[in-house]
Amino acid sequence: MQLKQIRDLCTRAKQASQELALLPARDKNRALMEIAEALERRAPEILKENRDDVEEGKAARLSDALMDRLMLDEDRIRDMAQSLRHVASLPDPIGEVIDGWRIPNGMEIKKIRVPFGVIAVIFEARPNVTVDAAGLSLKTGNAVILRGGSASLHSIRMLTEVINGALIEAGLPRDAVCLVESRDRNDLKKLLQMSEYIDLVIPRGGEGLKKYLLENSKIPVIYAAGGNCHVFVDATADVEQAVKIAVNAKVQRPGVCNSAETLLVHREIAAEFLPRAAAELVKRNVRLYLDAESRDLLAGDRKIAGEWLEDATDEHFATEFLDLKMAVKVVGGVDEAIGHISRYGTGHSEAILTNNLDSSRRFTAGVDAACIYINASTRFTDGGQFGLGAEIGISTQKLHARGPVGLRELTSYKYVVVGEGNVRG
Amino acid sequence: MQLKQIRDLCTRAKQASQELALLPARDKNRALMEIAEALERRAPEILKENRDDVEEGKAARLSDALMDRLMLDEDRIRDMAQSLRHVASLPDPIGEVIDGWRIPNGMEIKKIRVPFGVIAVIFEARPNVTVDAAGLSLKTGNAVILRGGSASLHSIRMLTEVINGALIEAGLPRDAVCLVESRDRNDLKKLLQMSEYIDLVIPRGGEGLKKYLLENSKIPVIYAAGGNCHVFVDATADVEQAVKIAVNAKVQRPGVCNSAETLLVHREIAAEFLPRAAAELVKRNVRLYLDAESRDLLAGDRKIAGEWLEDATDEHFATEFLDLKMAVKVVGGVDEAIGHISRYGTGHSEAILTNNLDSSRRFTAGVDAACIYINASTRFTDGGQFGLGAEIGISTQKLHARGPVGLRELTSYKYVVVGEGNVRG
Repeated sequence: MQLKQIRDLCTRAKQASQELALLPARDKNRALMEIAEALERRAPEILKENRDDVEEGKAARLSDALMDRLMLDEDRIRDMAQSLRHVASLPDPIGEVIDGWRIPNGMEIKKIRVPFGVIAVIFEARPNVTVDAAGLSLKTGNAVILRGGSASLHSIRMLTEVINGALIEAGLPRDAVCLVESRDRNDLKKLLQMSEYIDLVIPRGGEGLKKYLLENSKIPVIYAAGGNCHVFVDATADVEQAVKIAVNAKVQRPGVCNSAETLLVHREIAAEFLPRAAAELVKRNVRLYLDAESRDLLAGDRKIAGEWLEDATDEHFATEFLDLKMAVKVVGGVDEAIGHISRYGTGHSEAILTNNLDSSRRFTAGVDAACIYINASTRFTDGGQFGLGAEIGISTQKLHARGPVGLRELTSYKYVVVGEGNVRG
Repeated sequence: MQLKQIRDLCTRAKQASQELALLPARDKNRALMEIAEALERRAPEILKENRDDVEEGKAARLSDALMDRLMLDEDRIRDMAQSLRHVASLPDPIGEVIDGWRIPNGMEIKKIRVPFGVIAVIFEARPNVTVDAAGLSLKTGNAVILRGGSASLHSIRMLTEVINGALIEAGLPRDAVCLVESRDRNDLKKLLQMSEYIDLVIPRGGEGLKKYLLENSKIPVIYAAGGNCHVFVDATADVEQAVKIAVNAKVQRPGVCNSAETLLVHREIAAEFLPRAAAELVKRNVRLYLDAESRDLLAGDRKIAGEWLEDATDEHFATEFLDLKMAVKVVGGVDEAIGHISRYGTGHSEAILTNNLDSSRRFTAGVDAACIYINASTRFTDGGQFGLGAEIGISTQKLHARGPVGLRELTSYKYVVVGEGNVRG
């Protein structure tokens, strides 16, 4: 695309954002319901375009995992529509008076939640991100510019067309949701220069995309690092509970960022806890990477098949497996656990299982991560689970949004100051 | 400097930050008081080093304004010490429970204010930023890496030495305040790659520095754009009040970002308001750049000397004068004013003077800026005036901090989740 085309698209999005910012919740929610309805009604058109993507994907020999992300069916379209209806049902964050006070000269200061303006969402194969991103942006009064992965371009284009049609139907500006229809990375680069129009970039993709944005974006980005998450089983942990949590944190959904990758075990409880935990994990096909001490503890255990055990290397501790694999290390106490997490962790979700108040306080204060769990699974790091209603991702940066990025995190604020002719002396 | 030296410095700052994060307010405040005392006690040493900077500056023929920023005296050192004592007296933002709730499975979620970790403050000539930045960082439990302008290197080095000595005296880690002692911009570039150690960059300088950071920083930055601020005098404004506010916004301190640069005047009040306002402004040596309509209104006015009036060009409307200069434009109403501000404004501080509720609501909603004023001067955009206690600058970005950047804005948060063995189903 020409630079001018991208600038035109940004200009249209910015104009739409100025209209959106003023809309009351009622109008935004009506549009969300309208889009949900249009998605279900026009499912056959969407599925037809999706089949083109799927065929191209097969021809390009995409992996099974990628093909699964790419593929839509009636159920997945209904899920998208339902999630929009859910977003419509949530309270509107815009207009919230976050804080307010009077200053000594009598002026009233209010800090009021407002939309960012224009958000760009850069994503990879999943076509449903089109609908998610559009829904959360609309709800928060932001216009959104979508730039999806080339593998799902047919689907994304059709979904955007359906959304645009529904927006017009609902009396909202069509350009509230814009699509950069391009498979050329140079176009993404051009988009990332448009800081005059775009207020925020949100990536939904892997480390490669993150690195690309870090190199190329002139616009602020909310990054989500991977989650190399740990479960630390302290000396006073309830063993039965700890086994359950370790298993849940690893196997309930191993492919996501809030699943645990390393189990740290206090030396005093290791002999009791580890054989039981390892047996349960191995039973669920988890391959364990063991440090010397945990290996010694498990070596003689006939319940655990040897093929599921390997020696842990430094690389294992540093890896986000996103798979049925888990590293195991015995530590001398909470401080060693904190040290290990500080070295290998990615600041996502970290759990301590303990009944000791001092340990839990030290872990909470000493571990630098978005979410600290005491006696619970790391798997709860999620906007829905937290009760935020919805989320567009999990942030591991400390600026603006940390942890689940829900509706509030998609907003900024402005100060409104009311005086009676006040001047500064 | 070698890359390794910069990495070592960052490592030390990060280690210090881990200690700082755990300190209670009492310890941090004691260190602030200790630094204040050391600054006053060691004033002769500081002034001696400052004289070297001043002499080098004279030799390099720095401008008078720059020389004034560079120069320290007993009073200025006392002011620095006093501002540290003031920061010590403020409430500690760290540990604040920002929000908290229970979710349906019984788990308790708390959102707790924590330090960022390591902040890098990049500044230009003013040596007092050394002390300001150190004080605000310490108070918020952050370690700080300072990189000051080369013109004030002797002073900055001495001030850092005094601060480091006082930190040791107070039992805090010396590396809580680190200095990159270098006049080489390549060293700044190296520093801006250290995203593994540094959580946030704050620039205190002009557009050139901002542009450099935008090109080179791999670390999130809180930017402060300049302030091309407007005062819009609506049809129903109290004329006397409006004259006072327009004058205050322009002349009370013309060289700072929250002073007004353009006066927008509603056509219906222009004939009454403009001659009075212009007379007062011209009396205070303000040069006015007039659009055709305001020129016609003022042309016959004998009270206003012609030499203070010029035709306004597009460039005048786009310029942050930071000087006794002001552009003037007559507009048809609040929407035209919003349109003008949206085109030329920098999102800093924008005022409407009105007695019409609808106008004030439309202006507040329609103008996209950090601070909106109704019947008050733009000059109030300031952490101290807002009652935030202290500030390190004014942000015009929308991510994380908008408007005055006070103590709270120098913090992040973490979620702490307490369960009773909860696993995700």
